Amino acid sequence: MNDNLRIIPLGGLGEIGKNMTVIEYGDEIIIIDAGIMFPENDMLGIDLIIPDYQYLMDKLDKVKAVLVTHGHEDHIGALPHLMRDVDAPIYATPLTAGLIEVKLRRAKLLQDVKLITFQANDVLRIGAFTVEPFHVAHSIPDCVGFGITTPVGLIVHTGDYKFDHTPADGWPPDFAKLAEFSERGVLALFADSTNADRPGWTPSEMVVEEAFDKVFRQAEGRIIVATFASLISRIQQVADMAQKHGRKLAITGRSMRDNTKMARKLGYLNIPDDLIIDIDQLNSYPANEIAIMATGTQGEPSAVMGRLAQGRHRSLRIQEGDTVVFSAYAIPGNEEMVYRIVNRLFQRGANVLYERIANVHVSGHASQEEMKLLINLVRPKFLIPIHGELRHLKQHAVLGQKLGIPAENIAVVENGTPLELGPQGLTIGERMPGGYIFVDGAGVGEVGWSVVRDRDKLAQNGFFIAVVTTHNSNIIGQPDIISRGIINMAEAEDLLEGAKETMARTVKTYANSRKSLNKPIVEALNRYLYAETGKRPFVQVIVK
Amino acid sequence: MNDNLRIIPLGGLGEIGKNMTVIEYGDEIIIIDAGIMFPENDMLGIDLIIPDYQYLMDKLDKVKAVLVTHGHEDHIGALPHLMRDVDAPIYATPLTAGLIEVKLRRAKLLQDVKLITFQANDVLRIGAFTVEPFHVAHSIPDCVGFGITTPVGLIVHTGDYKFDHTPADGWPPDFAKLAEFSERGVLALFADSTNADRPGWTPSEMVVEEAFDKVFRQAEGRIIVATFASLISRIQQVADMAQKHGRKLAITGRSMRDNTKMARKLGYLNIPDDLIIDIDQLNSYPANEIAIMATGTQGEPSAVMGRLAQGRHRSLRIQEGDTVVFSAYAIPGNEEMVYRIVNRLFQRGANVLYERIANVHVSGHASQEEMKLLINLVRPKFLIPIHGELRHLKQHAVLGQKLGIPAENIAVVENGTPLELGPQGLTIGERMPGGYIFVDGAGVGEVGWSVVRDRDKLAQNGFFIAVVTTHNSNIIGQPDIISRGIINMAEAEDLLEGAKETMARTVKTYANSRKSLNKPIVEALNRYLYAETGKRPFVQVIVK
Repeated sequence: MNDNLRIIPLGGLGEIGKNMTVIEYGDEIIIIDAGIMFPENDMLGIDLIIPDYQYLMDKLDKVKAVLVTHGHEDHIGALPHLMRDVDAPIYATPLTAGLIEVKLRRAKLLQDVKLITFQANDVLRIGAFTVEPFHVAHSIPDCVGFGITTPVGLIVHTGDYKFDHTPADGWPPDFAKLAEFSERGVLALFADSTNADRPGWTPSEMVVEEAFDKVFRQAEGRIIVATFASLISRIQQVADMAQKHGRKLAITGRSMRDNTKMARKLGYLNIPDDLIIDIDQLNSYPANEIAIMATGTQGEPSAVMGRLAQGRHRSLRIQEGDTVVFSAYAIPGNEEMVYRIVNRLFQRGANVLYERIANVHVSGHASQEEMKLLINLVRPKFLIPIHGELRHLKQHAVLGQKLGIPAENIAVVENGTPLELGPQGLTIGERMPGGYIFVDGAGVGEVGWSVVRDRDKLAQNGFFIAVVTTHNSNIIGQPDIISRGIINMAEAEDLLEGAKETMARTVKTYANSRKSLNKPIVEALNRYLYAETGKRPFVQVIVK
Repeated sequence: MNDNLRIIPLGGLGEIGKNMTVIEYGDEIIIIDAGIMFPENDMLGIDLIIPDYQYLMDKLDKVKAVLVTHGHEDHIGALPHLMRDVDAPIYATPLTAGLIEVKLRRAKLLQDVKLITFQANDVLRIGAFTVEPFHVAHSIPDCVGFGITTPVGLIVHTGDYKFDHTPADGWPPDFAKLAEFSERGVLALFADSTNADRPGWTPSEMVVEEAFDKVFRQAEGRIIVATFASLISRIQQVADMAQKHGRKLAITGRSMRDNTKMARKLGYLNIPDDLIIDIDQLNSYPANEIAIMATGTQGEPSAVMGRLAQGRHRSLRIQEGDTVVFSAYAIPGNEEMVYRIVNRLFQRGANVLYERIANVHVSGHASQEEMKLLINLVRPKFLIPIHGELRHLKQHAVLGQKLGIPAENIAVVENGTPLELGPQGLTIGERMPGGYIFVDGAGVGEVGWSVVRDRDKLAQNGFFIAVVTTHNSNIIGQPDIISRGIINMAEAEDLLEGAKETMARTVKTYANSRKSLNKPIVEALNRYLYAETGKRPFVQVIVK
């Protein structure tokens, strides 16, 4: 057995993949978070990506707990997958637990999973680990980081945080607890790197409140605010503004309605009943007494904003005089889709406000000055940048070095790289294969890069399939041809004629050879189609 | 005949599409610019987009001139297409003409096109139009806007501009000329809106020079700078820095090499011969005496940076200690690919600097304060925001109104919307159908949205094609199945078995009916495949 503490970021570090960290000592494993991420533009047809937890599969009996920092998708989204394999309780604060419950119920797993709630400042004893959750500020309430006392020393994991002195829920981060950890001596700090390339200090949620106040003061028609369904704090801010400025609030988008209902029930959203109206009641109120909250800030065509942009929403139409607010940033890769929706909303007569032209969103993550404050508050021996792409981890490491942490005490590693902490200090192991798993349609892990590459080829070039029946160097009848995605059908007739001639010629040439006709026909078609279209479609031929 | 001046932005305004403006009076047409744009992420397989100039096709004899503002792709890229149809001279400044010449030569059109060079402050008399090019600052030298005296009045077209007092080529914009136009009275101002959502003043190119000076002072290994091939000013700046700091300069990427050669020949790039080395000579110099310029700032996998990130460049490998500078912004939609390359370069040991963490790029377009200065300098009766997405045009209109231009004198219109300027003032016509044309493989306009939608379906879902031979309610032999892009082949065996059973069952059920077997088999397969995979692949069946 190993006397070291082994920590493996399975989805928390590296180029891609969201947050999941495995902490192992002897026979005991605890897991922090299990998030999803959304596919990049070239991961065609993929719905979601979850961390690859193959490492756990022969150690499932060792897993004692899944600890969750907060209720955003990139921290809880993979739980419905993970909890099919892992038989251990989930620990979360009440709001986070509420959000997890919604997920597990949809996945029909709620009966099978033990969900234990804790409060910040509780002490959880889990096997060899003593876990002390501490409050942090982020863009969702009830958010924590963890101080974890292990047999080799105290480690601190921040989760997502920013040092917001005036957060939307009025509960600033627990600086005192961090200072207290520091007093005890922190072996390793695992800290959020998302904004490591942003200088300065992330603006407080208060800034958003002021921006909304201005929007609500000036808008003469309806106000439609789009944000993430799990941005509970933003929902509270918009509800407060609606109340202040005498507007009713309608909430649309299933996930946002579900989350709002749950958060109100648990007391994390304070919205009076008579403020809320149904989306179908909008016509009973004048435009300047209406506020609407909706999903779809990332350009998703099927979310509310996407449907509004295309005029395809069941009960809502953009009208002249509407003010639409995108209260979210566009995740890199989504900007183009987001701006297309913004343009279409302008086209339909709305005035559209977004981060760039009004302070209607601030980041939920610490910027460089906050990262420095954290490091100097906690004074860890080892710094392990987590959350973010490799470029962010690298910048975080640069900051750490500037504050005097020796380069060899900072570990910038990618997903699946085990870290060992022990009497010898910090050792970085060999990166394990794998990294993340595609969730696609009904399947998990049934689609890998090879399928995505096939899809990419089809997407770029289309396909061309012919069924040819031959007899004595001649094609009998007309070949059956099935083709899609190469050129417009109107222009395709000549192309198909040419392809048939190519096939006939090839059959004649090769008919008397002993070899299969298949390969020469495919090769001839490849050449012909490339010459005619400049494309290399997927070509296959069946010779009968 | 119409006494009005008709102006049609064919590629210059609106949601998408780049710059091309048609100006028509009586029997005469002049065209300003003919740019390309790069496809958005969901325009699968498309190489380029060019403006739809269908409007010109029955008026080609009227076209008297193609006037070009500057040599960037989004202003000259469609010329090789346009000049196959248009028989009129191209007018451009010497550097711009050099860049156009490179393009026309590659398209084997150089012999057929008359290319006339002019200088800023020349006066060009073209039929009813008197054209006065005036110098503007942008991120390429020899850049102009046009004052065009027409029978209805003077119009001013800015091209791309910023009010840079210290541009890289030392030639600030011609404020005096703008003031002089203003004196004469400007009917309409067509002004660049690209940065209309950026407050303040765009930083000068000088800022980039200072940032590079710091990079060159601090880097201990090789320096590799990536930028656009046509950003001639940036190439000059890097060459100057290489000389100042005792490094040789290698240029890689065909288009950048071609452009550099041409610009040096014409005297727009001042680089001494002994500064430049070939990429194959790098090994003869120590790392700290090498600077390299390369293409690929937009995440293109086949450009130099993309190949370096993947370790697939013929003669160059990233090594520990390299400093890589991305001296360009990522066009919306490209960020994800760009950052993936940044991450991979970090992974290979380079230190990577990009706009966010060092001032290694500034925009070439005016920000809000410059737009205001322009409007107040020119004092036009009508303002027509051009260049940029609809959201930018709208913001530009807001600025115009703030400066006192009445809302009814500002025309925010999309591509293909004709504007009439005449004694009655400004009238906005009906938008014409069309908008842009896809260039795909060897074809222009042979691929439209229907093909792209097919490709999208293939990209999301793959395809499944079966050839079934039947006799008396039975399938003879095994059906031939061709399928790609649905699930991994390793997991596909069960799926194929199930599909075969589905087909056999359907054949039995429908064999005695008079109807075609094709449709019921396709429907049964659709149901089966959706149930098994959650996907709706393209399904087709041939029954023999």
